[in-house]
Amino acid sequence: MTSPNPQDARRLWSKKTHDLTPYIPGEQPRDRQFIKLNTNENPYPPAPGVLEALKSFPIEQLKLYPDPTGLKLRTTIAEYYGLPLNQVFAGNGSDEVLAMAFQAFFDYHGDPNTATATKQIVFPDVTYSFYPVYANLYNIPFRRVALNEDFTIPLGDLAAPSAGIILANPNAPTGIALTLDQVANLASADRNRLVIVDEAYIDFGGESAVALLTEFDNILVIQTLSKSRALAGLRVGFAFGDPQLIAALERVRDSFNSYTLDSLAQTCAVAAFEDGNWFESTRAHIMATRQRTTAALERLGFTVLPSAANFIFVSHKRLAGDLLYSQLREAGILVRHFKQPRIEQFLRISIGTDAEMDRLITALETIVS
Amino acid sequence: MTSPNPQDARRLWSKKTHDLTPYIPGEQPRDRQFIKLNTNENPYPPAPGVLEALKSFPIEQLKLYPDPTGLKLRTTIAEYYGLPLNQVFAGNGSDEVLAMAFQAFFDYHGDPNTATATKQIVFPDVTYSFYPVYANLYNIPFRRVALNEDFTIPLGDLAAPSAGIILANPNAPTGIALTLDQVANLASADRNRLVIVDEAYIDFGGESAVALLTEFDNILVIQTLSKSRALAGLRVGFAFGDPQLIAALERVRDSFNSYTLDSLAQTCAVAAFEDGNWFESTRAHIMATRQRTTAALERLGFTVLPSAANFIFVSHKRLAGDLLYSQLREAGILVRHFKQPRIEQFLRISIGTDAEMDRLITALETIVS
Repeated sequence: MTSPNPQDARRLWSKKTHDLTPYIPGEQPRDRQFIKLNTNENPYPPAPGVLEALKSFPIEQLKLYPDPTGLKLRTTIAEYYGLPLNQVFAGNGSDEVLAMAFQAFFDYHGDPNTATATKQIVFPDVTYSFYPVYANLYNIPFRRVALNEDFTIPLGDLAAPSAGIILANPNAPTGIALTLDQVANLASADRNRLVIVDEAYIDFGGESAVALLTEFDNILVIQTLSKSRALAGLRVGFAFGDPQLIAALERVRDSFNSYTLDSLAQTCAVAAFEDGNWFESTRAHIMATRQRTTAALERLGFTVLPSAANFIFVSHKRLAGDLLYSQLREAGILVRHFKQPRIEQFLRISIGTDAEMDRLITALETIVS
Repeated sequence: MTSPNPQDARRLWSKKTHDLTPYIPGEQPRDRQFIKLNTNENPYPPAPGVLEALKSFPIEQLKLYPDPTGLKLRTTIAEYYGLPLNQVFAGNGSDEVLAMAFQAFFDYHGDPNTATATKQIVFPDVTYSFYPVYANLYNIPFRRVALNEDFTIPLGDLAAPSAGIILANPNAPTGIALTLDQVANLASADRNRLVIVDEAYIDFGGESAVALLTEFDNILVIQTLSKSRALAGLRVGFAFGDPQLIAALERVRDSFNSYTLDSLAQTCAVAAFEDGNWFESTRAHIMATRQRTTAALERLGFTVLPSAANFIFVSHKRLAGDLLYSQLREAGILVRHFKQPRIEQFLRISIGTDAEMDRLITALETIVS
């Protein structure tokens, strides 16, 4: 925070605005020459049904407000998961849904630094880096618990007394998944505490905690269409949970923006679910490519954490993470490197097409040799 | 706030969630038999260029995240208004932009009720009813100043010491507009205080405060494509102001959701601006229909406030507002009635097509006689 010139319009900022440290998403280069393996996008296009839906969309309908309840979309997802409609919430990307969940379920305080352990929410030290940003935005005290040496989730530490638990399953950027039993144990540890399970990458090998919702009213599952449905550009995310948890999200949403999902996004998202074969074949393909890429990188001396996501998290026994990042970039391949303690020797590499991964493997062969 | 059953998942709500009183938007009936004059939608479809843009949209692009900076869209709007790019912010509808502005510029407090006058933001008692909802969501103290007897804005009261001013220009639901001089006077009264001018309806006869931005760094103008561009279903809104005000909105946005505007919305919004003839002819038509409808209703004994918006605010010398609302509904015409002191005798009627307004006039002739 710099002290603004009194003539500078920063004098009009709220105190909070001065204190914010926004999330920085992965680079979106305008130059599409790059092989883009840095933001975990799906390398395959959306289901063909999405194109059909878009082509037949009645454009005149855009003059009207969208359905604020997203009824058709929520009905489609509810049927897909065998859930009642009142256990489904839809929002403008899972980031928005997460932000609303932080407001809906966690309490804010004037000074997050003085909060006792039971007023803090907890999440791993290495996880989706938006969680501390939300906590800061809403003045919610938090603490980070260190991942185990092998980068698995420290379940005991995570279950210790707190005001709430957030975890990504599979975790990002490690790719390591928890079992359903492990998630259930976290929820059982204190049934008066909410466990938010961010399942952005669940369709690439994890088990969804949606299966636990009949047993636990203190689990909120969050998903997105950005990864496994190849619709990052559409911005659609969901929450699944007890009807009263969904009601809380609706209260927050309706105090913020009555219509978060536009009509085109609602229509295309429905089509993505109706065209399920495409989803099954592309995610199977991505998992097969992940397996093959993992084996190839291991042969080049990389350690590859066991991934249940559409990315792998790798480090090399000799070469530094930032060096690998730069050399790949020079070779026209964009991956993600986090300048963060414990993981600065790692690269997060999204699983692309087979041709893209072959280019990656060839580039790494050159760099390593 | 009811005390939840301890077995009820409401035990997991934040304190704030219990206290929220969400905004209630106008009804969106699934039964399209109604003539829908209740949510100020445009009766004409979006510009033909929007359909073309949608048809030629490369669907494969949806697998990638949208441009988080909305560069092409912001460039288009910046050129339209002759503003530098860094004075333009785009968001997921003007409601979202307003919500972010409340966070970016107004400070929250533990107890809004004990705040002194200079810590309160101010807005008229009769205005867009989302403003107090935002203030409550972010714990921002506020006070309402009563409109004058003739429903004009009480400029002196609004300019009294406060932490910020919000006003809709033209005001909703009255439709009455301020002049640019009046807005400038509010901004001049205290240059260390922000004036947010919500111009959702500006294209139907008002003068945009964008013209004041070179002189005042303490004015933030907010607009939407929902009304005059006939894109309520697309969810696109803007803010215009000093580069540091835009920077504040970006900080809040990037702490909440990096990608608020999907790729389809960005593409269609650009097309709406590029196809400007449609915009000019439809808004002129709506203003002409408004004039004709006003004259017809005055002949039926209605008082019609002078409107610079795509709606009129009317009361009848003999018949009560709720009665008129119900009888119009029975006749298949949906208008908006607010059960709120001072305006409960009024109806807010959106300007539809000529045929729709003829049906309205005929129905009112029957009801009045």
